[in-house]
Amino acid sequence: MQSRGCVIGGAMTDVKGDRSKAPHQQTDPDMFVHVTRRTDDGVYVSGAKAHQTGCLNSHWLIVMPTMRLGEADKDYAIVGALPVDADGITYIYGRQSCDTRSMDGDLDAGNAKFAGQEAMIVFDDVFIPNELIFMDGEHEFAAMLVERFTCYHRRSYVCKSGVGDVLIGAAATVADYNGVDKASHIRDKLVEMTHLNETIYSTGIAASYQAEEMKSGVYLCDDMIANVCKHHVTKLPYEIGRLAQDLAGGLMVTMPSQKELEHPELGDLIKKYLQGRPEIATEDRMRIMRLIENMTLGRNAVGYLTESMHGAGSPQAQRIQIARQAQLGFKKALAKTLAGIAPDTADEIAGDLADYMGRVFQASGESE
Amino acid sequence: MQSRGCVIGGAMTDVKGDRSKAPHQQTDPDMFVHVTRRTDDGVYVSGAKAHQTGCLNSHWLIVMPTMRLGEADKDYAIVGALPVDADGITYIYGRQSCDTRSMDGDLDAGNAKFAGQEAMIVFDDVFIPNELIFMDGEHEFAAMLVERFTCYHRRSYVCKSGVGDVLIGAAATVADYNGVDKASHIRDKLVEMTHLNETIYSTGIAASYQAEEMKSGVYLCDDMIANVCKHHVTKLPYEIGRLAQDLAGGLMVTMPSQKELEHPELGDLIKKYLQGRPEIATEDRMRIMRLIENMTLGRNAVGYLTESMHGAGSPQAQRIQIARQAQLGFKKALAKTLAGIAPDTADEIAGDLADYMGRVFQASGESE
Amino acid sequence: MQSRGCVIGGAMTDVKGDRSKAPHQQTDPDMFVHVTRRTDDGVYVSGAKAHQTGCLNSHWLIVMPTMRLGEADKDYAIVGALPVDADGITYIYGRQSCDTRSMDGDLDAGNAKFAGQEAMIVFDDVFIPNELIFMDGEHEFAAMLVERFTCYHRRSYVCKSGVGDVLIGAAATVADYNGVDKASHIRDKLVEMTHLNETIYSTGIAASYQAEEMKSGVYLCDDMIANVCKHHVTKLPYEIGRLAQDLAGGLMVTMPSQKELEHPELGDLIKKYLQGRPEIATEDRMRIMRLIENMTLGRNAVGYLTESMHGAGSPQAQRIQIARQAQLGFKKALAKTLAGIAPDTADEIAGDLADYMGRVFQASGESE
Amino acid sequence: MQSRGCVIGGAMTDVKGDRSKAPHQQTDPDMFVHVTRRTDDGVYVSGAKAHQTGCLNSHWLIVMPTMRLGEADKDYAIVGALPVDADGITYIYGRQSCDTRSMDGDLDAGNAKFAGQEAMIVFDDVFIPNELIFMDGEHEFAAMLVERFTCYHRRSYVCKSGVGDVLIGAAATVADYNGVDKASHIRDKLVEMTHLNETIYSTGIAASYQAEEMKSGVYLCDDMIANVCKHHVTKLPYEIGRLAQDLAGGLMVTMPSQKELEHPELGDLIKKYLQGRPEIATEDRMRIMRLIENMTLGRNAVGYLTESMHGAGSPQAQRIQIARQAQLGFKKALAKTLAGIAPDTADEIAGDLADYMGRVFQASGESE
Repeated sequence: MQSRGCVIGGAMTDVKGDRSKAPHQQTDPDMFVHVTRRTDDGVYVSGAKAHQTGCLNSHWLIVMPTMRLGEADKDYAIVGALPVDADGITYIYGRQSCDTRSMDGDLDAGNAKFAGQEAMIVFDDVFIPNELIFMDGEHEFAAMLVERFTCYHRRSYVCKSGVGDVLIGAAATVADYNGVDKASHIRDKLVEMTHLNETIYSTGIAASYQAEEMKSGVYLCDDMIANVCKHHVTKLPYEIGRLAQDLAGGLMVTMPSQKELEHPELGDLIKKYLQGRPEIATEDRMRIMRLIENMTLGRNAVGYLTESMHGAGSPQAQRIQIARQAQLGFKKALAKTLAGIAPDTADEIAGDLADYMGRVFQASGESE
Repeated sequence: MQSRGCVIGGAMTDVKGDRSKAPHQQTDPDMFVHVTRRTDDGVYVSGAKAHQTGCLNSHWLIVMPTMRLGEADKDYAIVGALPVDADGITYIYGRQSCDTRSMDGDLDAGNAKFAGQEAMIVFDDVFIPNELIFMDGEHEFAAMLVERFTCYHRRSYVCKSGVGDVLIGAAATVADYNGVDKASHIRDKLVEMTHLNETIYSTGIAASYQAEEMKSGVYLCDDMIANVCKHHVTKLPYEIGRLAQDLAGGLMVTMPSQKELEHPELGDLIKKYLQGRPEIATEDRMRIMRLIENMTLGRNAVGYLTESMHGAGSPQAQRIQIARQAQLGFKKALAKTLAGIAPDTADEIAGDLADYMGRVFQASGESE
Repeated sequence: MQSRGCVIGGAMTDVKGDRSKAPHQQTDPDMFVHVTRRTDDGVYVSGAKAHQTGCLNSHWLIVMPTMRLGEADKDYAIVGALPVDADGITYIYGRQSCDTRSMDGDLDAGNAKFAGQEAMIVFDDVFIPNELIFMDGEHEFAAMLVERFTCYHRRSYVCKSGVGDVLIGAAATVADYNGVDKASHIRDKLVEMTHLNETIYSTGIAASYQAEEMKSGVYLCDDMIANVCKHHVTKLPYEIGRLAQDLAGGLMVTMPSQKELEHPELGDLIKKYLQGRPEIATEDRMRIMRLIENMTLGRNAVGYLTESMHGAGSPQAQRIQIARQAQLGFKKALAKTLAGIAPDTADEIAGDLADYMGRVFQASGESE
Repeated sequence: MQSRGCVIGGAMTDVKGDRSKAPHQQTDPDMFVHVTRRTDDGVYVSGAKAHQTGCLNSHWLIVMPTMRLGEADKDYAIVGALPVDADGITYIYGRQSCDTRSMDGDLDAGNAKFAGQEAMIVFDDVFIPNELIFMDGEHEFAAMLVERFTCYHRRSYVCKSGVGDVLIGAAATVADYNGVDKASHIRDKLVEMTHLNETIYSTGIAASYQAEEMKSGVYLCDDMIANVCKHHVTKLPYEIGRLAQDLAGGLMVTMPSQKELEHPELGDLIKKYLQGRPEIATEDRMRIMRLIENMTLGRNAVGYLTESMHGAGSPQAQRIQIARQAQLGFKKALAKTLAGIAPDTADEIAGDLADYMGRVFQASGESE
């Protein structure tokens, strides 16, 4: 698929209905994607997958279960690939902040080159042929599938550090255009933005470096660090965005539209009064502010902020996973030893110590 | 004016041009509002005031200098009142995030009842009659005017705690609709939002309580605390907004528009798949999410976030003012005394101590 | 008592034993202070009160219940006054960080003038005469007593802003002595310390200003704000302390003792090599660093940090109280109204609105 | 040296005197270690190195310049090795918080097994033979030497994540002993501590993974990430320590000493009243609290907190280095391109892009 240049969307998030009930217990069985009927050639599925980023510009979808399943949920334990234009699929496109702004001119858009989109995908008896089915009924593997997919997905949020670099650049540019780039508090805020952004970058890199080889030969990221990375992504972009707004100044949200700038009478007034440093065109000053608006309030704020919060699992999901891997038993033993308290079981500690040190010194599957 | 129900806009912020130069040094003299000519009946002013919140729904404007002025800036030392529809005024309306959304239906608007707006006000030879001139040439009082106006204005940002209460209510409602309002982490986030919001409220209240009576009989807020209040307002609403987005869930930015909801075919699919708790109408769930979108990314985010940052002075302006009033000399003397170092001047300390204690125990001008 | 200059300690915190059990259910009845026997003249009590700050320099103690009590806990519902040297009382003095340092010389002590101390008070059949008993068996008022005492007590932690002023002064002095007081990052850190410290101060002031008069004529602080104040005290002194250590430099924890400074040979080496700005005596530079050590690691760190955390209730206790008073029902109604959702009960909202506005505009018991 | 098991201390930090002057401009030339005279066999040095951690348990010292040097500072451009017991060296041992506590019994010490120490090293005409001199007069390399040493040193502060693991373990243990380990807020605080601690760990790992091979074959850490790692170490341990104190409870600073516990009468009272969960010995509960005291206020707080702040450069030193490497020019070009502003120089950007991507995708010196 990679050599053909195909984009595949991993469609995982079911709409879930009543969250206190398992899939097979729902009043409406379609709250989770499931097999509705089978033929010799394949299966038919119904249900919906929510929040699917980029599905409209993908070539294929792979539907997957969204959570741990039990025996009674067997029909929900379905993984299969289908082309995005398969019969029976309906895409319901989401509204975004400032979505219609794209039609108001490239200046007002802020970033007229790139944006993202999400859609809800409704499956109404969509066919998956046997050769594209990768799981069918093996419910006992659903939890492991979700956990591993999530581990990769959380680590992948390191991508927001690239977006952060653009926002740091925009903030540095607007400070420059405002003529305040030498002020110590401005420089310090750019340092803070960089420190936070590099924290996202570094935790992503470390999660990959500490990946472990699995039997298949594929490497799986360090689950703890992948979660730490994503958890930072649920907070730090908001602070980076806040600092960018600080540097931009209030004009970012009070300046007139492109139509006014291009208006025969108003245009001159705007150019006269919104001039910053004399050698910078007022239009350029407006453009960089519109970019910051786009990234902190507009279309790209959806991806940089809210999706950073909820994509690949909301903050609490990471906290649960961090708790699971915190090795508290071993850490308690370390503390007790130093405090002069007899730890509970010496043997167990020795094994834990090997694991603990192994993670640090024998990463990348180099051990054995 | 109060008994007549009139709204008066205090128009202070000049566009400033080259920030390294005084008003009279600017290449274009209109970078600050100034007197262009005088008659027996009054004066004519030209220039522009930026970011004027609510000017279009005010009855009167009062123009005021924006900063310390010198002898050579005398023509800029003008304070006067004018009706908002005086001849020669042009309002250039600002674009806001999601501004055109208001025309797409009340659900998509998020809050179809209230919003704010800013405009730039351009003055082209606008007349102010003598009886409405309150300062004309007394440049030496410009700095004091700005400082006192700012003190009130910064304290007035306590209003954002009222907006915060709405956002806390919206977050509590969406948690309720999502069926997760009993989860401990959800409850804890609502506590955090409340703690932060009450911090804004309390610092505002304290700034007023510690007001001092001036010779005129008017009370002026405690300048230190007014700045502390406003400084919190440049940060805490962003964190409160982030937590509201956490509770809302990703659907807040991926759900379809009102048009789709009202579409004969898609409407039923949306109602089926976006149902939260069964007793809550899907539309209501969408409405509360659209309100949170409105307050954290849309039209009201302009007022709740970016204007909270820059209105009444950007963060650094408060830090400068906090530094000025930090009484570091006295605090150093306290520390030296306790450390066994001879403080510099015993007499000075005694006076400072009286001031310091007076602020705490004789607030509200009750002393003497 | 006030006119006699007497100090009274309010002894509330029982040692509690098994926290999952009520007082009367404890294996050892002494886990909560309780009446052991009664005579015509009074009662005898046994048990212990923990963490009693300043009890050794008090004149009287008032024992009080530590939590909500039931019918079966009647003997624990005892409030009474006793002189600190009553028969049957044992004080067990607590160790503090660097406690023995006081004996090593005034320089090493950091603050040779003031410190605090805590002790555990053990009551072994201690007599309280009838005329000094204020509650005996009225278990149904125990919860209210605790809540009101706590409200005052949490608000009283505003005192830490006074300690904070000293630490700010010490940090400003050490920056001065190191010759870096003009550096922008140093000045900014002093501003940050001040902003945080004034936040504690302001929330304390606001809690008192919004006090409500009770039937007795006594004013009770605003419970929400008192909790917000104390909750800040559990965090901000740690950050203020961290910033003080930042300004102090590493010498604060690596410099030699007073004995070395006074040593005939080493003293000269120390004076030569630890000289900061030439006009400042090396000893003074050491003194101010020792004060910062004292307040962030030593004896006064006990009061400024850890006691700020746990005194008058640990952080979670404030969060519970903030949750109780968050008026979430009313705030939800505000949000629903703005979002175009019919709120649940219009009548109830009107009443809530009056309460809500009353808190803001009719504070200080001026209403009615 | 490694195979012989030798410890070498890299002695860099001069005492610096008047910080506004270069070494050769100081009134007292000994403010920086320098060559005092030369013989055929080697050189003699005088001066002092401050804050030298672990020098008393090292075998060798290597003295190095502490900052950029000019032509006139040639005698200060000296790097050489000497045994710790060389003639003419005086060690002046530093006081630490709670240092004498070690003599009061192992329980009170908190951690009776490990601690660290710093000393000031005074050199009075100490000889370094020619064969152990690695720089003598090559002042133009002093800045590079400091920068590279610092890059390793800052990355090495990842060690504090190991100390953090012990503190997390101690906090989890004390929650357990207090019987509150299942409370959601307790569990959440352990997650927060872990999240912060793993952030230190991950940034350290990433700095090493992105190391680049130098001509000598030695790898040098990624300087940006090494600084980000150290910068986190100046803050996060303080917050981890604060949370540990939160979980410990106030008893941590109010409980009596080991002497009282071992006292024939008081011991029984203490055991009775300070009992937590019945199956845990009161002494063990005291031991774990003393360990937390040791790490957040006592001897090991010196290393875990204050030295984390200042070792390998104070916070501002990292911010300067982060600023230097922020590639702001390139990031501005990214922002301008997206905003529709013509970037300044297309050619330059192409080169920058290669560097930027190279850092991400060709790390570990695999290129060329």
